[in-house]
This record gives sequence, structure tokens and C-alpha cells, in this order.
Amino acid sequence: MDPEAFLDVANQVIKLKMFPFFDIAHSLLAALAVREDLGANAQAFSRKHPLACWLSTMLVIFAGGMVANGLLGEPILAPLKNTGQLLVGTAVWYVVFYTPFDIGYKVAKFLPVKIVASAMKEIYRAKKVYDGVGHAAKLYPNAWIIMIIIGTLKGNGAGFTKLIERLIRGAWTPTAMEFMQPSFYTKASLLASIIFVLDKKTDWISAPHALVYFGIVIFLVYFKLSSILLGIHDPFLPLENLCCAIFFGGIWDSLAKILGRGQAKDGDSKDVKKSN
Amino acid sequence: MDPEAFLDVANQVIKLKMFPFFDIAHSLLAALAVREDLGANAQAFSRKHPLACWLSTMLVIFAGGMVANGLLGEPILAPLKNTGQLLVGTAVWYVVFYTPFDIGYKVAKFLPVKIVASAMKEIYRAKKVYDGVGHAAKLYPNAWIIMIIIGTLKGNGAGFTKLIERLIRGAWTPTAMEFMQPSFYTKASLLASIIFVLDKKTDWISAPHALVYFGIVIFLVYFKLSSILLGIHDPFLPLENLCCAIFFGGIWDSLAKILGRGQAKDGDSKDVKKSN
Amino acid sequence: MDPEAFLDVANQVIKLKMFPFFDIAHSLLAALAVREDLGANAQAFSRKHPLACWLSTMLVIFAGGMVANGLLGEPILAPLKNTGQLLVGTAVWYVVFYTPFDIGYKVAKFLPVKIVASAMKEIYRAKKVYDGVGHAAKLYPNAWIIMIIIGTLKGNGAGFTKLIERLIRGAWTPTAMEFMQPSFYTKASLLASIIFVLDKKTDWISAPHALVYFGIVIFLVYFKLSSILLGIHDPFLPLENLCCAIFFGGIWDSLAKILGRGQAKDGDSKDVKKSN
Repeated sequence: MDPEAFLDVANQVIKLKMFPFFDIAHSLLAALAVREDLGANAQAFSRKHPLACWLSTMLVIFAGGMVANGLLGEPILAPLKNTGQLLVGTAVWYVVFYTPFDIGYKVAKFLPVKIVASAMKEIYRAKKVYDGVGHAAKLYPNAWIIMIIIGTLKGNGAGFTKLIERLIRGAWTPTAMEFMQPSFYTKASLLASIIFVLDKKTDWISAPHALVYFGIVIFLVYFKLSSILLGIHDPFLPLENLCCAIFFGGIWDSLAKILGRGQAKDGDSKDVKKSN
Repeated sequence: MDPEAFLDVANQVIKLKMFPFFDIAHSLLAALAVREDLGANAQAFSRKHPLACWLSTMLVIFAGGMVANGLLGEPILAPLKNTGQLLVGTAVWYVVFYTPFDIGYKVAKFLPVKIVASAMKEIYRAKKVYDGVGHAAKLYPNAWIIMIIIGTLKGNGAGFTKLIERLIRGAWTPTAMEFMQPSFYTKASLLASIIFVLDKKTDWISAPHALVYFGIVIFLVYFKLSSILLGIHDPFLPLENLCCAIFFGGIWDSLAKILGRGQAKDGDSKDVKKSN
Repeated sequence: MDPEAFLDVANQVIKLKMFPFFDIAHSLLAALAVREDLGANAQAFSRKHPLACWLSTMLVIFAGGMVANGLLGEPILAPLKNTGQLLVGTAVWYVVFYTPFDIGYKVAKFLPVKIVASAMKEIYRAKKVYDGVGHAAKLYPNAWIIMIIIGTLKGNGAGFTKLIERLIRGAWTPTAMEFMQPSFYTKASLLASIIFVLDKKTDWISAPHALVYFGIVIFLVYFKLSSILLGIHDPFLPLENLCCAIFFGGIWDSLAKILGRGQAKDGDSKDVKKSN
């Protein structure tokens, strides 16, 4: 491909208008996620508790913005002032849960529809991460960690509000904490945030701005499609295992086991006794 | 009744001063609610954990303002700066929990006292909803949904903080979520918020401003008194059932059952299998 | 001791620079607390969930500032913008959890190290309470209760975020509520806040400003060391029992029991029946 044409495409991707089509895709996947999360009694639940159902779907749709606002001291409800997004979200929620003969849900679950919506959602995700990093950078120009946190939260807000979202529906699952088993989306948003921060704050990345953005969009879409079509769920896993082995004790633990088997056992049993 | 005199009364109601008498009524019912919620061991609990008891009572009293502030990016603690309300609340809490021979509690539970306090609380509720809608309208003049949410929260804040209030007392009841089974107060506050928003933002309601307000006050007081004296707990129920039948799948579900009994069964069993 | 020399020392204590040594001590004790809280499987947990481990440690380190900001409508993430503190915290966390052969943890647990760190942490605590009261006083010059709450939260923030900190690690212990059984640190921070507020807002305390501050530092350090070395855990207990007996029903309850044994029993059994 011609590099100039490539850069041209990148420049167009960065300026892509999100409303309304990308919002529809995002809302659709959010409503589907809520419905899947409800499991077999989704239909019954949606009939009995429409308010809780609507609220939890809205929370999934607006999760990123709400959580980021909450942590930055901005109004948590502010994302709802975007009436267009709210109406699109409500319409999609209604279609997924309440259309006659469940046509809406069946269409949404149809593979080609799901693939297109997923790809669009990933493009949206890249934009959200980018906007989140930019917003945090405006507020705290020197606090890289805040930029990274906000970028990650904007990218996969729904992962972090899962507990509250389920609580709205009367279910409490404290072990389903995103931090314990971060999903691929969280890790990808984290990586994207770090790259955007490096691109913004250092000279280490010499590629043009639009190309960096475009690269992340391609990365996100590519792995999303692999996940749906090929079942590859976490390309970060080997990297993580390596990192854990080197930095988080893996090698040293093995070494300690080999060198001082008896000593290690003593330490372990002491710990156990104390905690009893 | 003479219409002019009626309007006159309405104009006086809208200007009614809340402090201190309405605050006393509100605090009294809040403290009673906490005591009832503690059940049989309220006495023992209040002796053993006065701090948790006081804090949860304060949370109930200031719930609406705190939740609304939290969602609008304003200081959650700000309602506590009103020293007068705080002192009234503390005094009432002390009277309900710690007076010798439980005189305070017994007087507060005395039916006529409770009826007067309840009626006053409903007048206060109307004012809170009205103020909440007005406050949100100032911040987000075009976001109807935010006005309605804030109005509802201000009207029945304690319903939405029940989980936190109990958590302060060391009890966790995730299924007692207001959104799952909204109480009459939540529904009434929602309706009042919607009417206030329509009155404020559209020309659909031609009645004078004060009359609309007065109408809502009468509606709230009337149903509160019916609830205490006649045991009518939710006049919205028939309306809701109708609404659910038309909009949230009731009719279509029945139709689907009649038309395609076999097909529906297939779908159900497929869902069940997937979730297993 | 010469009073002038004493005042001189006090003046120097009030101007003590906290970064980086006091931050190291504070972070060290925070990381140790997280590790103790994890119990026997701390080692395994830190290897499996480094992200959750790091986040919960950071939450403990920055708890006071985050909670206070959250309640005052300021950005919850703002304390993280202090890059120096963040790096110190991360380094200490790494040393406590991941050094080869657990050297870091063993050194940190060594009694003299722990004593020095604890004493430094108490000096830091006094400063935090003082800053918290001052900050709240700037925002709400007349709301004593807000100053006291913020001072207490800044002094023992980690106590109040314990539930969230554990939740990040996938554990949910709703009964471990600080308000139910306030720890010595909470009570001491509360007392210190009240003294600072009185010193700031009234003329009741005639001692020079620096002396009041110094007195609180000595009080905190003294009781911390007694707690570690002598096992005296709560010097407030006798005072509390007295206070509960006089103000929170103790005496009246006893009187009621003596005067009307039969009547009290009736009331109790009625209560029990109602709650069944």
C-alpha cells in the first residue's frame, strides 16, 4: 500500500464522526452484554424489572465516562446530558429486550451483525481511550499515571462497573473484580493509553500522530475479530507470564525453592501458624 | 372553594419556611425508620454502636442532598454545613434512641404524632423535588433526564442509600435495591419530577406555577395518609401493569405463546442449555 | 526542660518536611498492612494478581486524600499526581512483596525498623489531620462537623477504605465496618481533629499553636509505641464506657430495669414479636 494513501486513511480515521452509527454499535453490544449476563432468565427479568434493566444497560453504555468523571471530580451524570446518545441507547435497549417474538435480539446475535458492531465498537474504543488520555493530560499535565488510568477506564469502563451494574439488578458478585482477572479489553486499553501517553509526552515515538492512532485501531479491531472468529482470547498472556517470571518473583521463587527448600518450608509453616 | 382563595393558599404553600418544624418532622421519621430497620435489637445496637447509629441516621436525613451532590460533582458533605439541620437531626436522633424509659420513641410512634409528621414530610418532599429539578435545570438546561433523576433522588434519597446506610451498621443486603422494587415514594417523586420538568420546560401545563406545586403537595399528602390510615400502599400499580403489558412485552409475549407455542419452547430450552 | 527550647522543638516539628522519609515509613506500614491482611496466601496472591495487589496497596497509601477529596467534590485521583509519593509507594510495595528470598519483608518486620517507621507514621498522621482540618476550614469556615470529619478521614483513611481495598482483591467483608468498631487510630484522629478545630476556631486553647500540634504528635507517638511495646491498645476505652453510661442510655437503662422490670420485659417481648 502506498504510504501516503495509508497516512490519508489514518487521517480520516482520526476524524471519523462517532454519532450515531458507532453509538448504535456500542449500545447494541452493551445491551447484548447485559442480556447475556442475566442468563436464562433475562426475558423474565426484563418484564418484571424494566427500570433496573434500563438503568443497568445505561450504566454499561455510559460506564467509561461516568467512572472517569467520578474520579476526576466532574459530574458523574454529565454523560447523560448527551440526549442523542441517550435516545439511541434507550432505543437499542428496547429493541434488544422487548421487540415482538424477540426479533431484535435474534438479529443482533446474527454473526455478521455482531462482527460489524464489534469492529465499530473497537474503533470507538480507540477514540475513547485517546480522548480520555487527552482530557486527563489537560487537567494534570505531569501525572502520567492519571492519564493512563483515565484512558484505561474510558476504554473499558463497563469492566470496572460490572459490580455496580449487577448490584442495580440485585446481584452481588464481589469476586468478579476486573483487577483480579483483567480482561483483554482492559489490557488492550491500558496498552493503548500508555502508547498515547508516550506519543503525547515524549519524543520516543517518531511516527506521525495519526499513524499511531490508526495502528491502535487496527490492533484493537484485529484482535477483536480474531477473538470472535478464531477464538484467540488473550494475546497478552505469554508476555504477562514472562513479565511475572522476571519482575514479580517467579525466577526468585524458583531459585529460593532450589537453594533453601527446608528454609522456605519453615517460613511457610510459620506464616500459616500466625494466621490461624 | 373560591378559586382565588385556592390560588392564595397555593402561593403560601410554595413559600412555606421549612426550618425548623419540617426538618424536625423529617428527622423524626428518618430516625424512626432507622430504628425500625434495626428490628428487635435496636436498643442494644444503639447502646453498643452509637457512632454507627448516629452516622446512619444522618445519612438517612441528608441522603437526598448527598446523593444528588455526588452525582452532580458537588461536595457530598456540603449538606452537613447547614448547622441548624444537623443539630435538629442530632437532637431528634438522641430523643428517639436514648431518652429515659424510651419516652421519645413511644411519643414518636403515637399515631397522631406520626400522621402530622408524615404529612409535613410529604410537603417537604415536594419542595425537595422542586428544588432538585430547579438545581439540575440550572446546570444542564437541556438534559431532561438529569433533572428527573436529581428530582427523584432528592425526593426519596433514603431509598437509594439504604444499602450504604445498612453497610454503615455492618449489614449488607444487596437484594434490597430500590431499582428492583421501587417504593411508592420513588414513583411519586419520579412523577412529581416529570411534572415539574414539563411545567418548567414546556407549555403543555397551562395552570399557574403555584397550582401545579400545590397539586403535587396534595397528591403526596393524600396518598401518604391513605397509606397510613387505609393501608393503600401503591396507587400506581394498575397503571404500571397496563404500561408493562403494552410497552414491555406483555401483549407480545402472550401473542407469541399463542401463535408459536412449540417455537417459544425451543427458544427457552436453548437458552437454558447455553447458560448451563 | 527549658520551656523556650521546648517551644523551639515544637516549631521545628510543625515545619518538618515529610517527603521522602516519612512517605517511605507510611508506605512501608501500608504495604505491610496489606500483606498481613492477605494472611498466609499473601505470597501466592502477589504472584498471581500483581495488579490487584499494587492497586490495593496504593489505595491504602493514598486512602485519606482520596476519601477526603471524594467527599469534598474534588478529584479522587488528584493525590496520585504527586509523582514522588507514587514512586516511593511503588518501590516500597515492590520491596515488601517481591524481593528475592523475601528479604524486604523480613527487614520491614524487624522490630526496630517497625518501631521507627510507626513513630514516623504517627508524626505524619498529625500533619495530615492538621492539613485536613485546615483544608476543610478554608472551604466551609463555619461547618465544624465537616472539618472534624475530614480531619479524621485524613488521619485514618485506610480504616475507612478497608472494604474497598479488600473488594479490589476480590474479598468482601461487610461487617468489618470502621464505624462499628472504630480503631484507636480513628478515635485518636477524631480527638486530634476536635482539638485542632477548637484551636483554630475558638479562644478556649490559650497555648501557642505549635505547642498544641506538638502535644498531639507526642500523644500519637506515645500511644503507638505503648501499643507495640506494651500491648496497650485503646486508652480511650474507660472514657468511652463512662460516656456511654451517662449519655447513651447506660444509667437510664439500668434505672428502667430496676424500676419497672415487668414493664421492660413486656416491651421487649412485644418488639420481638413484631420483628418475627
